[in-house]
Amino acid sequence: MSSLSSNLPTSPSTLRVGCVGGGQLGRMMALEAPRLNIDMRFLDAEGSSCPAGQVVGATDRNGVERIVKGALYDEDKLAELAEGCNVVTMEIEHVGVQGLEKLEAKGVNVQPSSRIIKIIQDKFVQKEHFSKYGIPLPPYADLPNLEAIHDAALQFGLPLMLKSRKGAYDGRGNTVLRETTPEAITTALADLGLKAEDLGDTLYAEGWVRFYSEVAVMVVRSTNGETRAYPATTAVQTDSICRVVLVPARNVPANIRHKCENIAMKAVNALGDGATGMFGVELFLVENGVDDIDVLLNEVAPRPHNTGHYTQDACATSQFENHLRAVCGLPLGDTNLLVGAAAMVNVLGAPSGDINETMKGVNAAMSIPRAVVHWYGKGCRPGRKMGHINMTADSHAELDTSLSRILELERISYDDLPAICRVGKCPLVAVIMGSQSDLPTMQDAVNVLKDFGVPYEVDIVSAHRTPEKLMLYSRSAASRGIQVIIAGAGGAAHLPGMVAAMTPLPVIGVPIKTSTLNGQDSLLSIVQMPRGVPVATVAIGNATNAGLLAVRSLCASRPDLRDKMEEYQLNMKKAVDSTSHSLLEQGSDKFLEGMATKSKSVNI
Amino acid sequence: MSSLSSNLPTSPSTLRVGCVGGGQLGRMMALEAPRLNIDMRFLDAEGSSCPAGQVVGATDRNGVERIVKGALYDEDKLAELAEGCNVVTMEIEHVGVQGLEKLEAKGVNVQPSSRIIKIIQDKFVQKEHFSKYGIPLPPYADLPNLEAIHDAALQFGLPLMLKSRKGAYDGRGNTVLRETTPEAITTALADLGLKAEDLGDTLYAEGWVRFYSEVAVMVVRSTNGETRAYPATTAVQTDSICRVVLVPARNVPANIRHKCENIAMKAVNALGDGATGMFGVELFLVENGVDDIDVLLNEVAPRPHNTGHYTQDACATSQFENHLRAVCGLPLGDTNLLVGAAAMVNVLGAPSGDINETMKGVNAAMSIPRAVVHWYGKGCRPGRKMGHINMTADSHAELDTSLSRILELERISYDDLPAICRVGKCPLVAVIMGSQSDLPTMQDAVNVLKDFGVPYEVDIVSAHRTPEKLMLYSRSAASRGIQVIIAGAGGAAHLPGMVAAMTPLPVIGVPIKTSTLNGQDSLLSIVQMPRGVPVATVAIGNATNAGLLAVRSLCASRPDLRDKMEEYQLNMKKAVDSTSHSLLEQGSDKFLEGMATKSKSVNI
Repeated sequence: MSSLSSNLPTSPSTLRVGCVGGGQLGRMMALEAPRLNIDMRFLDAEGSSCPAGQVVGATDRNGVERIVKGALYDEDKLAELAEGCNVVTMEIEHVGVQGLEKLEAKGVNVQPSSRIIKIIQDKFVQKEHFSKYGIPLPPYADLPNLEAIHDAALQFGLPLMLKSRKGAYDGRGNTVLRETTPEAITTALADLGLKAEDLGDTLYAEGWVRFYSEVAVMVVRSTNGETRAYPATTAVQTDSICRVVLVPARNVPANIRHKCENIAMKAVNALGDGATGMFGVELFLVENGVDDIDVLLNEVAPRPHNTGHYTQDACATSQFENHLRAVCGLPLGDTNLLVGAAAMVNVLGAPSGDINETMKGVNAAMSIPRAVVHWYGKGCRPGRKMGHINMTADSHAELDTSLSRILELERISYDDLPAICRVGKCPLVAVIMGSQSDLPTMQDAVNVLKDFGVPYEVDIVSAHRTPEKLMLYSRSAASRGIQVIIAGAGGAAHLPGMVAAMTPLPVIGVPIKTSTLNGQDSLLSIVQMPRGVPVATVAIGNATNAGLLAVRSLCASRPDLRDKMEEYQLNMKKAVDSTSHSLLEQGSDKFLEGMATKSKSVNI
Repeated sequence: MSSLSSNLPTSPSTLRVGCVGGGQLGRMMALEAPRLNIDMRFLDAEGSSCPAGQVVGATDRNGVERIVKGALYDEDKLAELAEGCNVVTMEIEHVGVQGLEKLEAKGVNVQPSSRIIKIIQDKFVQKEHFSKYGIPLPPYADLPNLEAIHDAALQFGLPLMLKSRKGAYDGRGNTVLRETTPEAITTALADLGLKAEDLGDTLYAEGWVRFYSEVAVMVVRSTNGETRAYPATTAVQTDSICRVVLVPARNVPANIRHKCENIAMKAVNALGDGATGMFGVELFLVENGVDDIDVLLNEVAPRPHNTGHYTQDACATSQFENHLRAVCGLPLGDTNLLVGAAAMVNVLGAPSGDINETMKGVNAAMSIPRAVVHWYGKGCRPGRKMGHINMTADSHAELDTSLSRILELERISYDDLPAICRVGKCPLVAVIMGSQSDLPTMQDAVNVLKDFGVPYEVDIVSAHRTPEKLMLYSRSAASRGIQVIIAGAGGAAHLPGMVAAMTPLPVIGVPIKTSTLNGQDSLLSIVQMPRGVPVATVAIGNATNAGLLAVRSLCASRPDLRDKMEEYQLNMKKAVDSTSHSLLEQGSDKFLEGMATKSKSVNI
């Protein structure tokens, strides 16, 4: 940290940041800049009506223009933007590299530097660079001529991706070649607006990747090379446009998520000096047989990224703040997820192009707890990114209740999400038992959960009669969003311990009373677990306490529930106080009589 | 919710909100407005260099001025601000009521309405209003003349507070009368810039309140009377200026916090029609003997409030967003706390007036995880509110590690906070035992916590030999920030159950092995708890599992820890796999030999 502190501005006067591009990414930077004592201006072809311009206004308090109107390739306009700025950065990589180089030659601080933009703008050059540094990539090849297309198809097989080296985004500039007949090739090139004679440095080929999930990782890198990754996310695309982002990446084991984060950091670091600010790193997960997952780099964007919007509401430092911190030489901010789960849904212009139709999801989100609306102020066109909605929750399962509501309004069915992304409707506590004969006992736990308003599910899972179900149930419980498992079993009671062996969740064991040994067999089978696999055991037949223990466990992250538990305890005290009061008042003889009468009337 | 939806703007076009005052509160509204599709303009005496003006710029994309320069009492300027606005609101209550009334007469939508501002501006009128609606207040009296001061002193006792009815803030306009000699009265009046003949409607008297804590509650009220409260906070003042806010209110039981929230909502509702937007409600807690706490209303501000800044980073909807939602007739947002604990520290201009000195805390906060900086862009003066820092954490105890660092840089010692606010350095897990002879067993739990990096404390608490300590320890554990208690005991093992009876936290019991009954006595004493008071019991002598259970419990709100637990389980599997591999390779005869050799070498 001490080396970072030396990076702090020695004067506390406001820093001025010039940003190339004033779209939604620039707008969201502008909304975080003021509280960091940063003043922003923008270069944008739309002028002051661009999304960022709507926020910062046309002129500042000194009458100086905050928006330079001009093309992102216009060198004079770039120079105008840079005037008086401590640093020039960008919200889009499709900018004039020559203009940036000229700024740098004049001593302007450009972050990320023109060298980085140059590498990233040309996706083939990008791949060559990452390949040199040992970053795992899908197979790819240069396409200087028609022959090279045939060579690539032979080498990588069909289908083959043909991709534009420059200027591609949101799926544009990509096409799929399914056969290598001259007609198919001509058609594929025509898709990209090209003819055979345009080949040279326009296209490259990529082998078809049979990925089972797309993961994106946001990485921030400081001017002195410190790198931090945000958690790996699942990115869901429809029609090649990012629609939904889920965090942490769904149904991806922790070690693979960390592998993704490490590869993303390694890739950004491989870019070297001048790789400053946020980088959006897109990855493919490819299954290589059971329990072996390959991570391949798809591509890198040198700026805040659609897959990082969730950081605004789910992390202490958003990607926009961290981009500003990094390019200004301030210390990097915390990249940890502060919630159990988060999601982002893009609001796209409705197919009709109607703005009222488009705003339906936004309006509904206003009434959904923990949903946050981010509107970009852009004119409405079908399929255009108009805004996004972030959601947070304590767990994936709780998140998906709001998620499915928002998705519906965005014309997406929750059930249409890739299977790996769905958790299904899922409770916080699972109450399971070895046999239906345990239910009368276990119902006491269910009643406690009802009273405390904790969502639960009840199921029969027998260690001895349904061993496969036992395994599947235990292994999937955590990723389904369950937080605590209550398991009841009697006799040679193996259920709680076997479940505990196959889940990282706390498991509470309820020894069921048996007719032969009064439940002592159940108790000892449940409580005497070996080192390493704990079961929280309660008294014989006391499922009430199992329910209460589950609630106490959940309290840690739920202050409301803690309050309810305190109230419950206060009520127990009051009940005993009141009994004590009656006993004192009536004397023991009369009190005992009353008890006998009550017990009789119960028996009738 | 359906009634709220009808309040949504039927057209999705941008809403325009005019705000009277462009200080830091207006600035922070302006930073949230764009993502809600709201465009703001401000009236401020400073013009476009005011804090809000720095954010929104001097002119919008159409060249229209966003900042009207003028006094908040200037009726023409108010009318200028209102032009083209869907609603006019304010960030300060010291505005011209007549000007607002004239706007309303012209049909301008003013929220909160002039009637509300009029009631609140005059603190005596405010008290009369709340008194009429049965809101509990400290004793107060009108002071039309000198005689009334003597009457009030007789009635309420000394010391007596003399308070200005209008224009007071941050402790200005208040003075303390300690004796009723003519000299003392003259001096007190002079303190407020008054003479005896100024009495009439300038001052009122308030009885001295011996409060043990100051609590503030932010309340939002919609145009159709729906009211929601944010959680009760502890507000710490130094020199009558709000310095630190702690959430949830520290060491205030849940039922009293809810009482505060209910009184705050009742007070805002008592204001009636036109009471729209955020309201900051300040309360006193007064002890009335053991377990009986009175809540008295101090005062109400009709706007976002310093004690509500924490909502920016600890709630899904900040007070600024909820103010805008309310005054625009949009549905109210979620007011729940999303984290275990939060704090806000005001950054005041350093006594030297030096800006570098002032920014020390801000710069340091940049390197502290989960600390968020909010700078206001104001010129530096000693004691002026220049910005604030929000902090969040899973618990009070974790929060206070960063809090004490920030406080130090703000020239406040953590130990100088009122005792009720401090939690002390506190771990997440407490490992306690009845006797030192239990330590060799219990150390296994400690080792697990060490391995997982979970902060812990270890202590001896004997149910039978230190019953008072037992009670104190159990009752205070939750408010000290402890999340799980592991208790070991042997024989007639009462410690775990007694602790569980006096805390809402999960308690894990470790039955210590005994020489007489091999620990069966301990096991049954711990596990056979009555309904209502659960103890999570592990195997006899198996403190390792108690540690692991504590970690599993904490996982619910700590995804990182969950990852570590999965890794731990994977390592157990690998260890057995490797042993199994050796056994298969060597055969059982040779393997057994190896085991014997190893065991011998251990014995040597």
